[in-house]
Amino acid sequence: MASLSDIGWGAFHELTAEQKAPYFRDAERERHVIVAQQFDRARLDALGILATQIRRIAKTHAGLDYLQSVLSHKRAMLYFSQPSTRTFLSFCAACEILGLKLGEVRDTSTSSEFKGESQDDSVRTFSSYFDLIIMRSQIGGLAERVAWLLSNSERPIPVINAGSGKDQHPTQALLDIYTLQRSFEEHGGIDGKRIIFVGDLLRGRTVRSLSVLLTQYRDVEQCFVAPDALQIGEDIQAILRERGVRFRLSDDLRGEIPSADAVYMTRVQNEWDASHGESARIDISRFCFGEYELGLLTPHAVIMHPLPRREEIASVVDHSPHAVYWRQMRNGMWIRAALIATLFTKDTEIRDYFAQHEIA
Amino acid sequence: MASLSDIGWGAFHELTAEQKAPYFRDAERERHVIVAQQFDRARLDALGILATQIRRIAKTHAGLDYLQSVLSHKRAMLYFSQPSTRTFLSFCAACEILGLKLGEVRDTSTSSEFKGESQDDSVRTFSSYFDLIIMRSQIGGLAERVAWLLSNSERPIPVINAGSGKDQHPTQALLDIYTLQRSFEEHGGIDGKRIIFVGDLLRGRTVRSLSVLLTQYRDVEQCFVAPDALQIGEDIQAILRERGVRFRLSDDLRGEIPSADAVYMTRVQNEWDASHGESARIDISRFCFGEYELGLLTPHAVIMHPLPRREEIASVVDHSPHAVYWRQMRNGMWIRAALIATLFTKDTEIRDYFAQHEIA
Amino acid sequence: MASLSDIGWGAFHELTAEQKAPYFRDAERERHVIVAQQFDRARLDALGILATQIRRIAKTHAGLDYLQSVLSHKRAMLYFSQPSTRTFLSFCAACEILGLKLGEVRDTSTSSEFKGESQDDSVRTFSSYFDLIIMRSQIGGLAERVAWLLSNSERPIPVINAGSGKDQHPTQALLDIYTLQRSFEEHGGIDGKRIIFVGDLLRGRTVRSLSVLLTQYRDVEQCFVAPDALQIGEDIQAILRERGVRFRLSDDLRGEIPSADAVYMTRVQNEWDASHGESARIDISRFCFGEYELGLLTPHAVIMHPLPRREEIASVVDHSPHAVYWRQMRNGMWIRAALIATLFTKDTEIRDYFAQHEIA
Repeated sequence: MASLSDIGWGAFHELTAEQKAPYFRDAERERHVIVAQQFDRARLDALGILATQIRRIAKTHAGLDYLQSVLSHKRAMLYFSQPSTRTFLSFCAACEILGLKLGEVRDTSTSSEFKGESQDDSVRTFSSYFDLIIMRSQIGGLAERVAWLLSNSERPIPVINAGSGKDQHPTQALLDIYTLQRSFEEHGGIDGKRIIFVGDLLRGRTVRSLSVLLTQYRDVEQCFVAPDALQIGEDIQAILRERGVRFRLSDDLRGEIPSADAVYMTRVQNEWDASHGESARIDISRFCFGEYELGLLTPHAVIMHPLPRREEIASVVDHSPHAVYWRQMRNGMWIRAALIATLFTKDTEIRDYFAQHEIA
Repeated sequence: MASLSDIGWGAFHELTAEQKAPYFRDAERERHVIVAQQFDRARLDALGILATQIRRIAKTHAGLDYLQSVLSHKRAMLYFSQPSTRTFLSFCAACEILGLKLGEVRDTSTSSEFKGESQDDSVRTFSSYFDLIIMRSQIGGLAERVAWLLSNSERPIPVINAGSGKDQHPTQALLDIYTLQRSFEEHGGIDGKRIIFVGDLLRGRTVRSLSVLLTQYRDVEQCFVAPDALQIGEDIQAILRERGVRFRLSDDLRGEIPSADAVYMTRVQNEWDASHGESARIDISRFCFGEYELGLLTPHAVIMHPLPRREEIASVVDHSPHAVYWRQMRNGMWIRAALIATLFTKDTEIRDYFAQHEIA
Repeated sequence: MASLSDIGWGAFHELTAEQKAPYFRDAERERHVIVAQQFDRARLDALGILATQIRRIAKTHAGLDYLQSVLSHKRAMLYFSQPSTRTFLSFCAACEILGLKLGEVRDTSTSSEFKGESQDDSVRTFSSYFDLIIMRSQIGGLAERVAWLLSNSERPIPVINAGSGKDQHPTQALLDIYTLQRSFEEHGGIDGKRIIFVGDLLRGRTVRSLSVLLTQYRDVEQCFVAPDALQIGEDIQAILRERGVRFRLSDDLRGEIPSADAVYMTRVQNEWDASHGESARIDISRFCFGEYELGLLTPHAVIMHPLPRREEIASVVDHSPHAVYWRQMRNGMWIRAALIATLFTKDTEIRDYFAQHEIA
């Protein structure tokens, strides 16, 4: 099994996400969550089941009191050098459900307090007071740097990547998978479903991660509905082809909806525009979901969105039973709680509690 | 009973505070705290009694441990888009007394993180992770907007207005009432007392709210002592007249003190000046409380102030037993705890605990 | 015994740290932590023993659950008007170990919210909601001002100075002492050891405090290794001389290492430069610790650093068993927990728990 203590930083850093994944697959040895690719089907299934058990246990006061005792002896640092209120709050909630105490560190890069100190030293110092680091950064690779650093120190606490740079946001991918698991719970699970992705597929990291994770499920068909300029990248298409996944590119949202089990909407990520206003020139009116599109859905189909949304979903859709994007937010909280419980090998204990208490 | 799900936002928003009050009177159905007017005498009395019970239970370690278990399964979001350290800390303390976990959201309006997202969506997303929203905003009506929005969603959690715009700050009014209740506990309660308000009565929302709430008590006489330019508004006078409340305008503080049961001091709210420096031209030296004024007080009279103060109370007054403004701060913590316990219908449980433990 | 209620602020403020110390020595009456000098040998020893007991109890989930119950009924305010992430996090951790709830107040001096309010009033208001104030400020003497103020109020809660101005940071001195206590636990304790201080000894308040505290130990020899321009101040030398402590000034790091039991490294504190870039002109290359210096150490010698470091310790040193500066960080957390437990007179209770549970 690959180990971070056997590889130098330079060599590790140059690996692709696929190549890094094995370093984080053995939950017992390297307890970090860095790339979506580290989760195989078995772990995805186990996490989804645990998330649902936690969610159900949490429905009663006694159940939540039990959950809050599970990791009441642990402390988590939320190190968010890139602001993200929703991800931050979701992780806070996940930690508090399990009783972890929280400490928050915001952007430190510009603080004169740290003048002359290396970032490695700052993070390692802060880590002294904690048992878990949850880290978000605009700098790609910072979370994996810290994971590597701590795995090569005397106090190797786990690191969770809560979004780093343009590319990785593994817990977002987990919550998307969990939302699909829940949505199809009574309908045979994710296997065999048809998922359509809509909007800015070129730059949305949630779509890119979810698309790759879905290749672990049997017979899932993927359809990418976007204007040409925002279509899904060649790299993702290559992965899908290599794994024999059925997929299709399209620019006809209304034509695709009737055969979709899930419609994953996204907003235009104009913050990544190479030149200012570039994506404002793209007509996305045909990639929006409104009352008319609602009428095209099959009975069990769901509409997802990673939020925040702009005009791509009309607010009238919010009240439809097909709309699961608000629940998707809460799913993030449950799956993150499941993930953290698993990192501290408390999954079995929680499953036993669930079984013994015959929770509805 | 009026319900937020039966009225559109436009129609609701245009109601006066008096007209909105019925929408928040039925604690079982619409569990929001939006306007001071929603509290009738029975609820004010019940809240005061509960606050005192909580305060007494909290005196022992075992008692506080019990209180912290009451809402240990709930999470509160403090959404403060307008900073107010004292109100913030008071709500934090109130929540922690009852065991609620806290999440904080500061000003989000200027964050690029939310570019393009509606405020409705932001608040609704954040609300996903919480069971209660405590909201302060410089924008009048934001708290009621969120209350209306959530009452029309699938997850209608309660909203407490912690100060919105110029007009409403209902929990401040509650703490003022509670301070009066405590001050006159051994002296027949608030009924029949004479309260004098001093200072900037035109713009102080605490005075305006408290004056109206006091109309629910029998035979309370109100006296407004201020320079002409800062006298209490015609609108409040009209309410008092309509309800047959005895009141008087005065500009003679020293003349009024000897017959006062409570002297409610306020500072000049020059942040609301229409033109810069406007209120600096008003001579307020005759509306200040110092050593001489102390000597005019009757034995049981109390001096209140919502704080912060400036020069209107000399610091020598702080050490007088008549000065209750520091205790008033802590009263805010207790009454807010009582309010939150009541919102989650835990009032009966706490009263039972109090009765069973024969707390002194 | 000296008491803050018997002395006016003006007279108290002008005392030296030595003269202030007696006001804080009687833990039962004046429960503030203001100056390093207030700790005599007996208290230093007791705190070190308690810190180790807390650290060992905390190793198990049950033990930490016990510790978290000790002060679960108390609330601490972290009032940090000067940012210091590491001190802040260390105090947070210390409080949470003992179950204290936390409230945070950041810089309030520039906030329009407080316009016109005195700092005394602000702090006293905030203190209403708490049972302990932990205070850091760039203003020398603020913590002692607040301690004096509260000791002369009806709600005299304790104040801990978490760094004020240039001079005092007593809990940093405590953690340094505790690190020495632990390092020499198996080697006869601090008595008789030889400590060398290296770097900017002129301005580093940690060195200045530690040097004075060490005079309470028997036969400790102190050696100050620095470039002339950054040598230890005459005032400290005078104290050492007066107390008959053996000490030496040196500029030869490599010559001193072989006889050192502890090497206390520091960075150049150029933020205190009188003129910009002043200390950049000093050659400190001879006051750095690298691989060569490692080879000069005796087997049990330790390398300390208050952190943050710059180039004065090479990162290769981090992996040496001599390097205790990371552990030093965690020691800060344990000694602060011991200090807070003692302030609330919970030391005996914790010692009893430790004894009864025969903790390894």
